[in-house]
Amino acid sequence: MPDLPPLALIPFIDVVGTFVFAISGTLTAADKKLDPFGASVIAFSTALGGGTVRDLLLNLRPVWVQEERLLITVFVAVLVTILFRGAIGKFRRTMFLFDTVGIALFTILGMEKALRLDVPPLIALVMGVVTAVFGGVVRDILCNEIPLIFRREVYATACLAGGAAYLLMRLAPVPPGVPVWIAIAIIILIRLLAVRLKWAFPNLKPEE
Amino acid sequence: MPDLPPLALIPFIDVVGTFVFAISGTLTAADKKLDPFGASVIAFSTALGGGTVRDLLLNLRPVWVQEERLLITVFVAVLVTILFRGAIGKFRRTMFLFDTVGIALFTILGMEKALRLDVPPLIALVMGVVTAVFGGVVRDILCNEIPLIFRREVYATACLAGGAAYLLMRLAPVPPGVPVWIAIAIIILIRLLAVRLKWAFPNLKPEE
Amino acid sequence: MPDLPPLALIPFIDVVGTFVFAISGTLTAADKKLDPFGASVIAFSTALGGGTVRDLLLNLRPVWVQEERLLITVFVAVLVTILFRGAIGKFRRTMFLFDTVGIALFTILGMEKALRLDVPPLIALVMGVVTAVFGGVVRDILCNEIPLIFRREVYATACLAGGAAYLLMRLAPVPPGVPVWIAIAIIILIRLLAVRLKWAFPNLKPEE
Repeated sequence: MPDLPPLALIPFIDVVGTFVFAISGTLTAADKKLDPFGASVIAFSTALGGGTVRDLLLNLRPVWVQEERLLITVFVAVLVTILFRGAIGKFRRTMFLFDTVGIALFTILGMEKALRLDVPPLIALVMGVVTAVFGGVVRDILCNEIPLIFRREVYATACLAGGAAYLLMRLAPVPPGVPVWIAIAIIILIRLLAVRLKWAFPNLKPEE
Repeated sequence: MPDLPPLALIPFIDVVGTFVFAISGTLTAADKKLDPFGASVIAFSTALGGGTVRDLLLNLRPVWVQEERLLITVFVAVLVTILFRGAIGKFRRTMFLFDTVGIALFTILGMEKALRLDVPPLIALVMGVVTAVFGGVVRDILCNEIPLIFRREVYATACLAGGAAYLLMRLAPVPPGVPVWIAIAIIILIRLLAVRLKWAFPNLKPEE
Repeated sequence: MPDLPPLALIPFIDVVGTFVFAISGTLTAADKKLDPFGASVIAFSTALGGGTVRDLLLNLRPVWVQEERLLITVFVAVLVTILFRGAIGKFRRTMFLFDTVGIALFTILGMEKALRLDVPPLIALVMGVVTAVFGGVVRDILCNEIPLIFRREVYATACLAGGAAYLLMRLAPVPPGVPVWIAIAIIILIRLLAVRLKWAFPNLKPEE
């Protein structure tokens, strides 16, 4: 089945990603002292906001509007986070790893979706990055903050680099199935190195 | 005509709801010292933002983009509010009642629209709540505030409870036409009791 | 070719408009001390946000999602702005003129697009104004500010006035091709006069 993207074959891959991002959203909402309803909206936005923006731009009905799976996943994640707050706090490092794997997977899944709709490659790359990072942007807007990724260490850039590599490998005689994993590895690697080595782009300076 | 939703038979029901929400939006804009153009945008977002977000998610062209009726309603509401500010201030209690009836009606109208597009029930429930409360969320984002409903007394939850009851009654042998009114009554009752008895969910706490 | 809108015949008109708005967005991002990625997102939103909101409301896939032209234009504009910051600072007056011509062109282009989809005239007018000014609204939301145009001198109102004149001229026996240029001239004139003569609507006052 060379036409099927290898990632889509992994069952529940989107459920796992949604679950992890929803936990992270609930923790943010708790920091903002929101109530359980507000926390659910923030968790939802963090987990599904990126894919929703992508699907609206592609003029599609978002996946979570068609199937209840993802909505229920967010709800369970919010409940679990509220009930086991203390325990989750101890897994910050694991959460970070999940988040990193999550943005890698979502980048490639988002690109694949756009490419299969015959969107031009560069725009598919943007759609991949949007899928991965725009949930966090929506979360920050709702929490009344300048989105973190506009000022933070290499994050969206890791997705961009991995996605660009994915596009290049499509042009080269690479066996099918391989580019996906290389691209994901690139994203994870850049993100881990960036955090470990405190990579950051210099911020622009206001004019004097 | 059992297939037609009873609410849609009431003429101008959406015009009345839009009018009330647009007045409330204009009052908010005045508190923020916006100019008449800003006030119109805020009034518009408050009144039509919820339905617009729902329709974008359902991949439909929003109703106000197809018919001028609702746009003109908002414009008239802004004018009336600017001209008769003092008088409207005296009707705060009436406004509150209208607002409460408004979110009840919009919840059920939004659910009906989604259900008729064969959206799964749980997601139709979300679409109903979005229709009712997201106008306020868009308004607060434009006014640079953390959306009020994320921190406020039982508001969206009233819509959720009424909407859930509506879904359950569809499964039971209830005569057609009855569920709509029971659901609306539940939403209004919960909202009134919540305000009167100062019900509120506890806010989540940031981690120490 | 009387069916073709005269403006669409001018090649690259959208590329030029996008380029100018993207420069202005990058300068805003620098004032906020964002990094290059954040600056790109802000430039992108400023330049293409208005047309994107319009196309989502019209239930279309935005133009920049279909063709790479506009995306690349934004990217080049960001690069140029970062590299030649000092020089661009000297062209503030030219930038202002370009911006003024830009909102005039975008208003009419946006209206034309909506009218050709058989959207009612008043709503086409709103779509034109949205095309012209909502990029700035999205930019300000992302930068965590109350959108400037809600409080600023006559800006969206100039677009409204020119757009309304355009609609009226369509009803009158004006030779085809003429209304476009008159409408654009009205928008530019009102905007220039407003800035020169410091026109402003009075802000609304909060209730005592």
